Amino acid sequence: MALIVQKYGGTSVGNPERIRNVARKIAKFRAEGHQVVVVVSAMSGETNRLIALTKEVASNPSPRELDVVVSTGEQVTIGLLCMALEDIGVAAKSYTGAQVKILTDSLHTKARILNIEDAPMRKDLDGGKVVVVAGFQGVDEHGSITTLGRGGSDTTGVALAAALKADECQIYTDVDGVYTTDPRIVPEARKLDTITFEEMLEMASLGSKVLQIRSVEFAGKYKVKLRVLSSFEDRGEGTLITVEEDKNMEQPVISGIAFSRDEAKLTVTGVPDKPGIAYQILGPVADANIDVDMIIQNVGHDGTTDFSFTVARGDLAKAQKVLEGVKAHIGARAIESDSTMCKVSIVGVGMRSHPGVASQMFRTLAEEGINIQMISTSEIKISVAIEEKYLELAVRVLHKAFGLDTAA
Amino acid sequence: MALIVQKYGGTSVGNPERIRNVARKIAKFRAEGHQVVVVVSAMSGETNRLIALTKEVASNPSPRELDVVVSTGEQVTIGLLCMALEDIGVAAKSYTGAQVKILTDSLHTKARILNIEDAPMRKDLDGGKVVVVAGFQGVDEHGSITTLGRGGSDTTGVALAAALKADECQIYTDVDGVYTTDPRIVPEARKLDTITFEEMLEMASLGSKVLQIRSVEFAGKYKVKLRVLSSFEDRGEGTLITVEEDKNMEQPVISGIAFSRDEAKLTVTGVPDKPGIAYQILGPVADANIDVDMIIQNVGHDGTTDFSFTVARGDLAKAQKVLEGVKAHIGARAIESDSTMCKVSIVGVGMRSHPGVASQMFRTLAEEGINIQMISTSEIKISVAIEEKYLELAVRVLHKAFGLDTAA
Repeated sequence: MALIVQKYGGTSVGNPERIRNVARKIAKFRAEGHQVVVVVSAMSGETNRLIALTKEVASNPSPRELDVVVSTGEQVTIGLLCMALEDIGVAAKSYTGAQVKILTDSLHTKARILNIEDAPMRKDLDGGKVVVVAGFQGVDEHGSITTLGRGGSDTTGVALAAALKADECQIYTDVDGVYTTDPRIVPEARKLDTITFEEMLEMASLGSKVLQIRSVEFAGKYKVKLRVLSSFEDRGEGTLITVEEDKNMEQPVISGIAFSRDEAKLTVTGVPDKPGIAYQILGPVADANIDVDMIIQNVGHDGTTDFSFTVARGDLAKAQKVLEGVKAHIGARAIESDSTMCKVSIVGVGMRSHPGVASQMFRTLAEEGINIQMISTSEIKISVAIEEKYLELAVRVLHKAFGLDTAA
Repeated sequence: MALIVQKYGGTSVGNPERIRNVARKIAKFRAEGHQVVVVVSAMSGETNRLIALTKEVASNPSPRELDVVVSTGEQVTIGLLCMALEDIGVAAKSYTGAQVKILTDSLHTKARILNIEDAPMRKDLDGGKVVVVAGFQGVDEHGSITTLGRGGSDTTGVALAAALKADECQIYTDVDGVYTTDPRIVPEARKLDTITFEEMLEMASLGSKVLQIRSVEFAGKYKVKLRVLSSFEDRGEGTLITVEEDKNMEQPVISGIAFSRDEAKLTVTGVPDKPGIAYQILGPVADANIDVDMIIQNVGHDGTTDFSFTVARGDLAKAQKVLEGVKAHIGARAIESDSTMCKVSIVGVGMRSHPGVASQMFRTLAEEGINIQMISTSEIKISVAIEEKYLELAVRVLHKAFGLDTAA
């Protein structure tokens, strides 16, 4: 008998039929003797519907009241799922975030979990009940409803698993696991049986949408055994996210290839090549709440240099405006921009012990005539910024070059 | 400066535009220096939408979980109204029933209020905020969400007014007050400036839908000054529901005429005329959860008698079945039924001091050839059961006969 936390996303509970389906899935785990805590999202489309309502009522909705409205989405789902469970003879009890209580700070719409009371849930579990908890929400010290931000239901699942010391946290989604890359681009992409937290974090931060990044951080921190599974397929082990890399196997050097479209590059040309220039350029950008990703400062000549960085394409216009505002002050010649960039990254804990991975990547791209415009690296990841038109080609050739096409 | 509790029903907050409209109405009261507590229902149609969802998920939804789902309707409205208020510069704070906390018993879907904590609301009011409370809901001693049953938002409003010792509880609805009778039947019907709680209770129990009957009982019990107003008209004093009849004025004998369609009559013929027969007939009917309204036992002859009573038309088939089951046991000859009955009632505290009201009513109906089939009376009400086809005629002639057509 194990204690399992299961999280079902908005698509998995998207209509009454699917909710009844999830109830049957849970009933099987109960029949096998497991204790089950279930975390659910709002039915798909519901959160957007509620947000649209708020925008019709107020131009700039108060964050506290936004949380009051939006948190009802998950509250509806917990009630419906409990009814569906009881309808097939499975005892169940619903909990809102406040009822649990999932104590958070007071940063409405993006609150962080501070503490979870596990005793009442444990009592229900020991009494043979399935505990169904509203994801994405909590309550602050004043009793106000808070939400954890988009995708926060994953975080709720992992946090509950940590608080209850669950044997496993299963994240049910519409894919059956984590893949070496997006199968829509590389049909040969394979599902990974395991991936490390570090790799998963890099994959998630690079645009792989399977899990919310905060939930992965949380799971890594509290050593929660995390598994990604499909809610639509009846069996399959999904992908297990592990703390340690598997020492018993011949690990491939690279676990996966992530990418993100919608990158843009800004170049500030002819700036004085002197200390402090990076801060003078990036300070105002950060103040405008724009995330900067990759950064390059060219070697200077004639006492000036060019300074380039990438931002999300949606932030390009705003970033340009910020730079035009400080251009004179920093003594730059011009602000140039390129809105057709993308980023391709190879990720793998194996690269720690395998030198030459970077050069293999660069050679593979060079052989296809793909020009690398920027590079950034971490201990287990190498990212390159390239022209967007090369994205699919780059992912395909790298997937093949690093042996991901063949079965492990 | 007064403390006013205002309740807005589902139609009044039926869409974002109307919510903004209610916000402007509240802003005026604030501008006049009043402290305002607002109780809101779910947006019209929302409760039905949620109940429909539950029926798609489970054949017999658990009452506890039904309350979890349905209570989200009012939660959405409190958040939206607070946003709308803040959007026009009025400080506001929303409270769910649990946040207030409105403590109820654990009878899910029809809970009763046990206690209301007024201190936190009072603090917000003193801090200049409008307090917006979700109607229809509370929380039980275990922290489970409860609902008060349909129309319970009126009860929430009155209960808050009592707990806060408010100067007035204003119920905003889609009519501008309580009328002498339904203006769709008698165009000459007049809005009453005042009506006593006793009269309002009789009117409500007889089908006048302006206020939920429990809220009127509650207001009477706790001496809450209750006023019914239109949320769509900008001014107007509505109808004030008073504890005492107005001694200074020449009160009309009758304040209003109520009616209910959908009555049905059952007659058990040829039963032995002996003690206990009423219980033998009505006991099984009550056990089947059927409300019996008017009852007549004819004078017996030949040792047998006929026993008649009315039920809601929807209960007729069920009641017939019950009676057929006990027919042999009680020695009855036959069960007869008439499904085309209605009930017309005259209501007025004035009849206490005016004998002859009943005979005036009966004479008026007789003059129109309307046969009275059953009669029931209370201290301030006389009801008659008549054929449904005479309903409009009866209401019209009584309205005229008791001087209600002319302005007070």
